[in-house]
Amino acid sequence: MKKNKLKKKIIDIFVRHKLSKNHAKICSEAIINAELVGAPTHGLSRLKMYCDRIKKKVINPKPKIQIKKISQSIAHVDANNSIGFVAADIGIKKAISNAKKTGFGLVGIKNSGHYGLSGYYAEQAVKKNLISFIFTNAPPAIAPHGALKSLFGTNPICFGTPTNAKIPFILDTSVSMINRGKIRIASKTGKKIPEGVALDKFGKPTNDAKKALQGVQLPIAGFRGSGLAWMVDILSGVFTGGNHGGKVKDPFDDFTGPQNIGHLFIVMKTNLFVNNYNKRIKENIKRIKKLPKLKGVKEILYPGQNKFNRFKNNLKKEIKISKIIMNDLNILEN
Amino acid sequence: MKKNKLKKKIIDIFVRHKLSKNHAKICSEAIINAELVGAPTHGLSRLKMYCDRIKKKVINPKPKIQIKKISQSIAHVDANNSIGFVAADIGIKKAISNAKKTGFGLVGIKNSGHYGLSGYYAEQAVKKNLISFIFTNAPPAIAPHGALKSLFGTNPICFGTPTNAKIPFILDTSVSMINRGKIRIASKTGKKIPEGVALDKFGKPTNDAKKALQGVQLPIAGFRGSGLAWMVDILSGVFTGGNHGGKVKDPFDDFTGPQNIGHLFIVMKTNLFVNNYNKRIKENIKRIKKLPKLKGVKEILYPGQNKFNRFKNNLKKEIKISKIIMNDLNILEN
Repeated sequence: MKKNKLKKKIIDIFVRHKLSKNHAKICSEAIINAELVGAPTHGLSRLKMYCDRIKKKVINPKPKIQIKKISQSIAHVDANNSIGFVAADIGIKKAISNAKKTGFGLVGIKNSGHYGLSGYYAEQAVKKNLISFIFTNAPPAIAPHGALKSLFGTNPICFGTPTNAKIPFILDTSVSMINRGKIRIASKTGKKIPEGVALDKFGKPTNDAKKALQGVQLPIAGFRGSGLAWMVDILSGVFTGGNHGGKVKDPFDDFTGPQNIGHLFIVMKTNLFVNNYNKRIKENIKRIKKLPKLKGVKEILYPGQNKFNRFKNNLKKEIKISKIIMNDLNILEN
Repeated sequence: MKKNKLKKKIIDIFVRHKLSKNHAKICSEAIINAELVGAPTHGLSRLKMYCDRIKKKVINPKPKIQIKKISQSIAHVDANNSIGFVAADIGIKKAISNAKKTGFGLVGIKNSGHYGLSGYYAEQAVKKNLISFIFTNAPPAIAPHGALKSLFGTNPICFGTPTNAKIPFILDTSVSMINRGKIRIASKTGKKIPEGVALDKFGKPTNDAKKALQGVQLPIAGFRGSGLAWMVDILSGVFTGGNHGGKVKDPFDDFTGPQNIGHLFIVMKTNLFVNNYNKRIKENIKRIKKLPKLKGVKEILYPGQNKFNRFKNNLKKEIKISKIIMNDLNILEN
């Protein structure tokens, strides 16, 4: 489907589900962006879930979002159980404007929901020539090191910086060995998942996606990755007033209440300490790209390059929509 | 040797190498702390190196450290090639006092050197009931994903928070599969290193420590860990005005100039967004500790617990000093 047609369709669907036109537009853009960067697990495949949550009154389509000013640099957002995209859009914009004014912006958000890709918000900061750190927690997916039960979300760590080139440096990495969405897709299509990324519910390694969904996903790098996931839970949940410690509900399976996800946005001016950041970052990347390469490696890529290239390629094409998703769209429209 | 005797000895050595009494004391405390927490690679084993660098005039024993105020929250430190401990001590104290005043402190440091353990500075913030993020870069040790040459340092990510209990949460994790100090020790003692942590200079996996030192160490989690190491290089080097992109010199091997390491300290009040952080973090940890455990696991530990327990145990005992190090001490004293 053509991008603009799809965009209009998604806006219509959200408006039909009582979102304001403006909020529907924000959501539509984030969802289409996820499709374009090649992250369909964070795109259209979630549309029905968002609408279901609105219908079940666990997402508030008409939120009264409150922004509390803590200082010129710091703000706290109570998202009033809005859809995550809308809360995050407000949060990153506030963090950006505070950083523009004071060099540094810090925004904590509570009572939010799944907001799609962290990198999408880091890109907004990069467009204003700002560095950003973005954290969010998520429903239980990863077992803490030593535990037989999932508790941490895939809890991404996201860092973005301008590069003085067209493609920004956007590191947006979950601390899980595998994306939960990928396991979900493998489970639906009956495919195996790689070894070493998950345990079944008895604590045994498994490559069966269905068993992995009932069991636990493993963090990257054992105790270290578990510590990073824990850090993200503290920063985005404990610190902001959001849910934490395994209390974020699974948006697909649990309609007993709002998710109350927390997000944290830290945004900084690039030139706080040096007056030639753009030159320095360009040189940094150049030096690394010039290193001798392992056999078979054509180019050393920085985080964000692959995603940007997918985005550029996909922009030229129509967005592919599976039969299942087309069916969702048709039902949700009517 | 008794802790106090050793402390005095190290102070004497640094004073003999032209440090002020106060700076010598700061260094001595950091080095002894590394021994007590069980990180000897960051302790006495570096004492001779620091003194050698002072003698060769690549560490400045009488630095004129300049602190430039950017705002009430933000400061930039030019450490004038001081020993890293001294620069970091000034940096964390400034970040703490700014955070106490404004909720948030951000301090970038350039022209510094190896400062020991990041966690040591996070602990200082925790003692003031503050959250901290601490970044430093380091000499080339890890190959960027796809490269056949080391460029990133072991570039630790450090995050600390009070826990409302005696033991703070201090995540201080290098993004390398293995600590470079451990490879160095294995190389000296002729021991093998684990599989999968390093490549030889031809890009082949090796468990020979000597070959690994000539080759490259691998980041945790492939492209993700490489991205995290890159992020730390940008934050602590590109952003602060420090060296970056592989330009930080190895302190043991390269006396052709100062290291110009960069550090970044981000410190925040715990109660910026919630008025019961201490209660929330306590509950978070409690929930995680109560999870069912994998076979053989007695307790789910949070980052910092092991280190704290080693510290407590070691405090009761004399500090063990190897013959090689005792020899260093005797030479440096005279």
